[in-house]
Amino acid sequence: MNNFELYNPTKLVFGKDTVSKLGSLVEPFGKKILLVYGGGSIKKSGLYDRVLSELAAIGAAVHELPGVEPNPRLTTVHKGVDIVRAEGIEFILAVGGGSVIDAAKAVAAGAKYAGDPWDFTIGKAKIEDALPLGTVLTLAATGSEMNGNAVISNWETKQKRGLGSKLVYPRFSILDPQLTYSVPRDQTVNGIVDIMSHVFEQYFTLTDGVPLQSRFAESVLLTVIENGEKALANGEDYEARANLLLAGTYALNGTLPNGVVTDWATHGIEHEVSAIYDIAHGAGLAIIFPNWMKYVYEAKPERFAQFAERVWGIDPSGKSADELALAGIQATRDYFTRIGAPATLGELGIGDDQLDRMADEAVQFGPIGSFKKLGKADVKRILEMSL
Amino acid sequence: MNNFELYNPTKLVFGKDTVSKLGSLVEPFGKKILLVYGGGSIKKSGLYDRVLSELAAIGAAVHELPGVEPNPRLTTVHKGVDIVRAEGIEFILAVGGGSVIDAAKAVAAGAKYAGDPWDFTIGKAKIEDALPLGTVLTLAATGSEMNGNAVISNWETKQKRGLGSKLVYPRFSILDPQLTYSVPRDQTVNGIVDIMSHVFEQYFTLTDGVPLQSRFAESVLLTVIENGEKALANGEDYEARANLLLAGTYALNGTLPNGVVTDWATHGIEHEVSAIYDIAHGAGLAIIFPNWMKYVYEAKPERFAQFAERVWGIDPSGKSADELALAGIQATRDYFTRIGAPATLGELGIGDDQLDRMADEAVQFGPIGSFKKLGKADVKRILEMSL
Repeated sequence: MNNFELYNPTKLVFGKDTVSKLGSLVEPFGKKILLVYGGGSIKKSGLYDRVLSELAAIGAAVHELPGVEPNPRLTTVHKGVDIVRAEGIEFILAVGGGSVIDAAKAVAAGAKYAGDPWDFTIGKAKIEDALPLGTVLTLAATGSEMNGNAVISNWETKQKRGLGSKLVYPRFSILDPQLTYSVPRDQTVNGIVDIMSHVFEQYFTLTDGVPLQSRFAESVLLTVIENGEKALANGEDYEARANLLLAGTYALNGTLPNGVVTDWATHGIEHEVSAIYDIAHGAGLAIIFPNWMKYVYEAKPERFAQFAERVWGIDPSGKSADELALAGIQATRDYFTRIGAPATLGELGIGDDQLDRMADEAVQFGPIGSFKKLGKADVKRILEMSL
Repeated sequence: MNNFELYNPTKLVFGKDTVSKLGSLVEPFGKKILLVYGGGSIKKSGLYDRVLSELAAIGAAVHELPGVEPNPRLTTVHKGVDIVRAEGIEFILAVGGGSVIDAAKAVAAGAKYAGDPWDFTIGKAKIEDALPLGTVLTLAATGSEMNGNAVISNWETKQKRGLGSKLVYPRFSILDPQLTYSVPRDQTVNGIVDIMSHVFEQYFTLTDGVPLQSRFAESVLLTVIENGEKALANGEDYEARANLLLAGTYALNGTLPNGVVTDWATHGIEHEVSAIYDIAHGAGLAIIFPNWMKYVYEAKPERFAQFAERVWGIDPSGKSADELALAGIQATRDYFTRIGAPATLGELGIGDDQLDRMADEAVQFGPIGSFKKLGKADVKRILEMSL
């Protein structure tokens, strides 16, 4: 186990009808609120009206940044920063899924920085200050509701990059599983893949001596696998939705990587695909992750064998570590297919014409990953396997 | 799953030689420090000198509250409050195990309260303010390093009671597994029992639909069971000590009870025993917990059956839920005995003459527990089973 620091000040407010606590949670931070949301599904569901009514009850003045894209764009962040400055915004409230929360974080940090917030993603500037923000989560997937990270897309340069800081942890996040009842089937599927992929990035490690972190990761995976299919069978199964939601938060709130060298190569590769083709993050991960697994498992087959046995319940008797590992990878692929996630880039209409560019971009700052360090040729091969 | 809030602002600084970060962690809070510690083992180990040298490096003025007892006493808390007031202390630093940290929390809250800090434990007053505190942990057991709870003993009235507040979460806790190398065998054993007992109180629940919390709890138990025996076999096994230490923190940092109705009856009963006999908390729990289990399991044998199967690896085939449950309870008792924990109050020289009084005290505020509600007769019966 390596040395680590764990610090997560986000207050999680979880459960039925917890939106009713919004006013008292926002009030300490001020009355001038920027409400950030996406394509309008919160208007259809009635959540928008409930949020406005909670904010009206504390006498808040609400400005809006609507229309945040599924891969949130830098231009949208710029718009948000402009509103914050023009209106003297004191608090940012993100109502939506990961992209909405990520945009809100970038606005929160960008508003306190004289340059372009894109600078945070390319190492040109460090976040030194940020407006406080809170969230009402509507989708089990992101983990962004309880961490200090965000991913932003620059559509001009076709780049998708991350930023992170302790200063952009949400002050609170409201998680009502009922708010996820109306999530469409394909988004529920993408969320399941997204959560599992977050765990994979932290679970497949060469670090030894981390049994607690490994078991925690397996706990999240088993919970998602069991409850994902239940939520797909019945979108209004409260327990299934609640367990998916909580698993999504724990997948990325700092519980799993303590003292572990994590990987994140697959996310890096997927970001290059969705930066060019604007596909759903979960769909890209469902395609690429099993291929990454096949490409890298030989670096430590025992880790993948443990995964096969503990997560997929595959009987180890008579199997070599390699055989077990491959059976676990196949079980992962089969699960993704069973819930309706895509298996090839071809299914999304993506051909081989940009592989070189994507591979170049993925390794522009050097080799990626840690389970097996990947250079350009490795990334290109994984993308070819995904066609 | 029930509604819940999760908030834990303690910064955990975990790993080898992390005491070197003490100065920079303390500095933001001020220069007038109250150093709280126990019977002097930190002087023998050299930790005391390292801490003083770290504090000297930031120019801190250090006052001391030494001699905190294994069951920390109200009189010691009073002493600490007096020092804080006389010296204008700005920050409290607890260096030691759970009792030292608990005493520091009571001092931190007591110093900001005009009455007797005992009032916090009997519901006569609520903690409205507290000095900031931090910890350097030297024992895997308590969980107090990452929560807002403390237990104090009133030796005059022979009562042991808890206090709790968001205001007494440590601002930071330094956990260096090497600091636990010198923990004697009996204290390591008590720590193992203590950690497992904390998990039991939250795991044995009637709440349904909490698979993630259950698996997290099982993860902590499995990690402690595996690493406890390793740490006993070799006190300087870094990985074993590190895993015990981290498991102890996760057993009680708010990860396990999310949305779960917890029990805590056994802790209530043990507190009455150690309030009168001043025995080690872990020893008392090792005796009482398996008897509590036998007394209550019929309220939901399936929960205990799951425990037997997942934690102790007992093959369920051909066994009824009751048989599996009892096999799991026996495995628990056997493990405690195998690591050298006591099985009966008699082994500690405790007879049946105070059972009535202890049972009375345990239920003085009404029935205790939730898995099965226990009245006076139930508590007395569990104590009799423990003789």
